Amino acid sequence: MQIVVLAGGVGGSRFVRGVRSAYPGAEVTVIGNTADDITLHGLRICPDLDTMTYALAGAIDPERGWGLADEGWKVMAELQAHQAEPTWFNLGDRDIATHLIRTQMLAAGYPLSEVTRALAQRWLGADSPVTLLPMSEDRVETHVRIRDEHSPSGQRVVHFQEFWVRLHAEPPVLGVVQVGIDEARPAAGVLETIAAADLVLVAPSNPVVSIGPILAVPGIRDAVRAAPAPVIGFSGILSGAPVLGMADKLLPAIGVEVDAAAVGLHYGSRHADGVLDRWVVDSDDAASLARLHRGGLDALAHPLLMTTPELTAAFIRAAVDHTPGDDALAS
Amino acid sequence: MQIVVLAGGVGGSRFVRGVRSAYPGAEVTVIGNTADDITLHGLRICPDLDTMTYALAGAIDPERGWGLADEGWKVMAELQAHQAEPTWFNLGDRDIATHLIRTQMLAAGYPLSEVTRALAQRWLGADSPVTLLPMSEDRVETHVRIRDEHSPSGQRVVHFQEFWVRLHAEPPVLGVVQVGIDEARPAAGVLETIAAADLVLVAPSNPVVSIGPILAVPGIRDAVRAAPAPVIGFSGILSGAPVLGMADKLLPAIGVEVDAAAVGLHYGSRHADGVLDRWVVDSDDAASLARLHRGGLDALAHPLLMTTPELTAAFIRAAVDHTPGDDALAS
Repeated sequence: MQIVVLAGGVGGSRFVRGVRSAYPGAEVTVIGNTADDITLHGLRICPDLDTMTYALAGAIDPERGWGLADEGWKVMAELQAHQAEPTWFNLGDRDIATHLIRTQMLAAGYPLSEVTRALAQRWLGADSPVTLLPMSEDRVETHVRIRDEHSPSGQRVVHFQEFWVRLHAEPPVLGVVQVGIDEARPAAGVLETIAAADLVLVAPSNPVVSIGPILAVPGIRDAVRAAPAPVIGFSGILSGAPVLGMADKLLPAIGVEVDAAAVGLHYGSRHADGVLDRWVVDSDDAASLARLHRGGLDALAHPLLMTTPELTAAFIRAAVDHTPGDDALAS
Repeated sequence: MQIVVLAGGVGGSRFVRGVRSAYPGAEVTVIGNTADDITLHGLRICPDLDTMTYALAGAIDPERGWGLADEGWKVMAELQAHQAEPTWFNLGDRDIATHLIRTQMLAAGYPLSEVTRALAQRWLGADSPVTLLPMSEDRVETHVRIRDEHSPSGQRVVHFQEFWVRLHAEPPVLGVVQVGIDEARPAAGVLETIAAADLVLVAPSNPVVSIGPILAVPGIRDAVRAAPAPVIGFSGILSGAPVLGMADKLLPAIGVEVDAAAVGLHYGSRHADGVLDRWVVDSDDAASLARLHRGGLDALAHPLLMTTPELTAAFIRAAVDHTPGDDALAS
């Protein structure tokens, strides 16, 4: 069985661990978001790809939920002593080795897909049943237009990481742009893997800055729409709030309500001009099923908390095994 | 008083601390060797400049004699886990911050002299009486031709750092080349500072790979020869062996005996075509004074161990205060 997952970082990696638990024998290909990548201190940093790799290796710091366990901060402390900007993005010592290797391989001309594979080998081994592909070989960066009363124009454009990490997603968002997305090529293997999949899953990652950019890479959205396999998406919005991250700060900027049904309808049905065959909302959002059905989407409700891989596996299996039209609340 | 010192790394930095102790009120400009610089893991590394900066800041690891105290090795351990070559050159975590800043500033177009000043500010402060200048703005790298029986030609060319760190200076040396030296420009301020100096000192650093390259940068040798100030050199060879490092492995490759007098005559007198007004050998090499005088060099003998800055200061002052022709053994 071949499963493709479109995924972001922290939430996406929890979801993929659930996929592994639900279908232990499957070959899983993760198409990872690279639109919140950034270059800092001369290092090319791919936060979502690294979070995915570290999490699948069981190497992620369990308390922070991101970055490596047993991490050190000596490089960062020195950079701060030098007042080397920016000092608001924390880079762990072990993590920096990843970025050094990536930066050097990219400078040597390797495409990001090969760099990602080389880095994954150290963490997952050469025979891992999970393959991680970046969505694109090309540089795509999410910039956020925010309100800024100190600016003459009343607004300012910052990199997504500055918005997220430095500004804690606090300034009002006026717009979101994925710089470079129109010229981005899908990474080697992305379109072929989607076409060959038995199942395509859209993780409950941020619809604006994680899943959105993946689908916006020219060719990927069409490949998902044309996939022979069923395409099932999962809501990261539970009871009107994101379970992880700050999607609630970004959805309004693309005109989407912070609501499980609204996000499903935003992705849309393949019978119309969308990408989904089925949308899964949390049990607490079961009342929104009627709205989804009216919008032409097969949908079900199920508890969606990803506290353990087993709980995550349970809702993934329930979603795959769901009989369309049977909207009884799953337990 | 303005003092210029030509210097390499570990020995050079001990010497400069002695200069500071001997002449506390002086402005000292160190012209540092950059010919053993190397790029590893995409980082531009200037070992001699960094050793000098760290040592003058009192931040050098006292046991290793190089690198920073309170250093960590997490980045290196990760690079090794990735099998990212080369793994034979140890880079400390704190040290890597220095290299990240340097690499990024160079990539942004800053000349090495400005990068060096920026890095020194963090360690020595903006008002330091010691100014560190790289010998050149340009990339110069020492390559060593060694005997290698596994090679079809029976020889192989390696970077100086590979010869030094990885091969422990063990293979027989057939030749030494400073790649890039002929096109190298003296760094901003080097020639002017030599011309304005009240005293020019040649540290007891390696004559082949430290002092040699500095003097070989087009313009520097001529500037030293033309300097109004006295030029005094100090032997790093004591009783036929280097007190630090492995100059004994390299001197034969340039046709110079491993001997205090031979090195002095190699530098030569300004009255002939050399750079020195005076040469200082260790007390144990006093027997070589006659040979130096026959070679036209003013010379004296004095204990040259650099165990403390005060001991180092003693021999520097003795050398400066020496009356030419008075060759009595100083105590």
